[in-house]
Amino acid sequence: MSLVEIHEVGARDGLQNEAVVVNADAKLELLRRLAAVGLRSIEVTSFVSPKWIPQLADADEVARRFERHPGVRYSALVPNAAGYERFCRAKLDVAAFFVSASEAHNQKNVNRGIEAHLDAFRPVAERAKADGVTLRCYVSTVCGCPYQGAVPVGDVLRVVRRLLELGADEISLGDTIGIGVPRQVRELLRAVSGEVPLERIALHAHDTYGRALANVESAFEVGLRRFDSSLGGLGGCPYAPGASGNLASEDVVDLFERSGVDTGVDLDALVETAAWAERELTGRALPGRVYRARLAAREREA
Amino acid sequence: MSLVEIHEVGARDGLQNEAVVVNADAKLELLRRLAAVGLRSIEVTSFVSPKWIPQLADADEVARRFERHPGVRYSALVPNAAGYERFCRAKLDVAAFFVSASEAHNQKNVNRGIEAHLDAFRPVAERAKADGVTLRCYVSTVCGCPYQGAVPVGDVLRVVRRLLELGADEISLGDTIGIGVPRQVRELLRAVSGEVPLERIALHAHDTYGRALANVESAFEVGLRRFDSSLGGLGGCPYAPGASGNLASEDVVDLFERSGVDTGVDLDALVETAAWAERELTGRALPGRVYRARLAAREREA
Repeated sequence: MSLVEIHEVGARDGLQNEAVVVNADAKLELLRRLAAVGLRSIEVTSFVSPKWIPQLADADEVARRFERHPGVRYSALVPNAAGYERFCRAKLDVAAFFVSASEAHNQKNVNRGIEAHLDAFRPVAERAKADGVTLRCYVSTVCGCPYQGAVPVGDVLRVVRRLLELGADEISLGDTIGIGVPRQVRELLRAVSGEVPLERIALHAHDTYGRALANVESAFEVGLRRFDSSLGGLGGCPYAPGASGNLASEDVVDLFERSGVDTGVDLDALVETAAWAERELTGRALPGRVYRARLAAREREA
Repeated sequence: MSLVEIHEVGARDGLQNEAVVVNADAKLELLRRLAAVGLRSIEVTSFVSPKWIPQLADADEVARRFERHPGVRYSALVPNAAGYERFCRAKLDVAAFFVSASEAHNQKNVNRGIEAHLDAFRPVAERAKADGVTLRCYVSTVCGCPYQGAVPVGDVLRVVRRLLELGADEISLGDTIGIGVPRQVRELLRAVSGEVPLERIALHAHDTYGRALANVESAFEVGLRRFDSSLGGLGGCPYAPGASGNLASEDVVDLFERSGVDTGVDLDALVETAAWAERELTGRALPGRVYRARLAAREREA
């Protein structure tokens, strides 16, 4: 097994935040390619209402039809009981749930407070646990909130504790607006490690201010080994209004591999997959830095 | 005094690598604005032959006419004896010299090997020392070379030692192609600190692969306090062929200020200066991440 695990979110978090709507066949091909390059944890889709997110309206079809690759964990977002029913009809391993560390962000996102949101999810979590389904929980805005500003570490810890009570197997801490700095990430992870072993924690860094890799590196230094990222930076060019600035998977893989840390991912093949995604899925330049630097080098040579 | 010093290279390294040629008056205004926002070490120009770099053909005029701000150290590149004569006719504090840690890169850059290049500079360095001029030396390709690939730490140390013998007061280590990773930067700096106190060392990080801030952070952790960067990322959009991927000054300042480390620079004013530079100097979108994220936020609000 590789030393770090890259959790690939391009097919869900990525495509959900692209302007184009990608058809199901193309999504199946994307999922096939992601597994083929060595990614071992892949987010497939989200079982939200198709009305909310047209980009993922084909969630049931994709989750039923995609080709499983041996040794890969496949996950999907399950926001509620109806979503869990759909999850059970698919061939997935991990049910993922979202909550914010910021009261204001949670309110804005799902129109209720953190406690009410967690309470509503409890029966779903109980069913998932009873069914032996792995539960991954995303905590967003852990380094800061677009609405309330600062998010105290204590608020993140409170949510983490509540998720552990609900049976979370893995918790992904999201710096949703990319505002975190290494010192903050280290302090946060040291505090979280008092609640749960870091083996069960992931970092979901965004590159809005160019600090994603600095934060990834600092998280690795304090012992974190799970990192979320998106093929080519799918799901948000940081230069566009409203974009999320997803960290590109190639950038994380290259950082680690050049540091002598095995990711299990074939970087060259991953870069080719980003090129394929740009050409076949988005039709717009993907922002991944390693991908773009390699393209530029190729153009210089030509 | 601030805890870290940002050495601003936008007016030289930046403009030298932009397609447009900026007139002298605009350069003077740029230099005035850079000092006004709190930058205390500013690279003004380069006394190379005007034939080589049309962007800096007005070096003598700029270096003579710019308005000195109290407390700011102003530097210029001095490649040879002729350049030093021009330096002496201007009102500058620091003479800067370039050499590569990679034999192949030095050869390609100035058409001679490292030793011959250093030998040729020796009389200039001696004059500068006799004149009481501060000598800053740039060592490029310290993390890797576009021609020879790997650059051993020992090769960097050898060049650093030779520069110290020549009387270098300050040495800026350049990751010219942005290939370095934090582990490598830490190892390099620890080795260099065996030769010279880190107070006399700067890091010149490039953001080609999105790792500039990760490298800056890791350098800070091992004790480095001087960092080179370029307003708005002037001098190279990493997306364009041949571009250098200069690290944006706003990105470094924001990283440090959010980490509780005083830079002495007013970030808001610096971002405004980047907007001015984009509008008045380059006319093309500058790549600085903090600058672009703030622009995007403003567009969302509007």
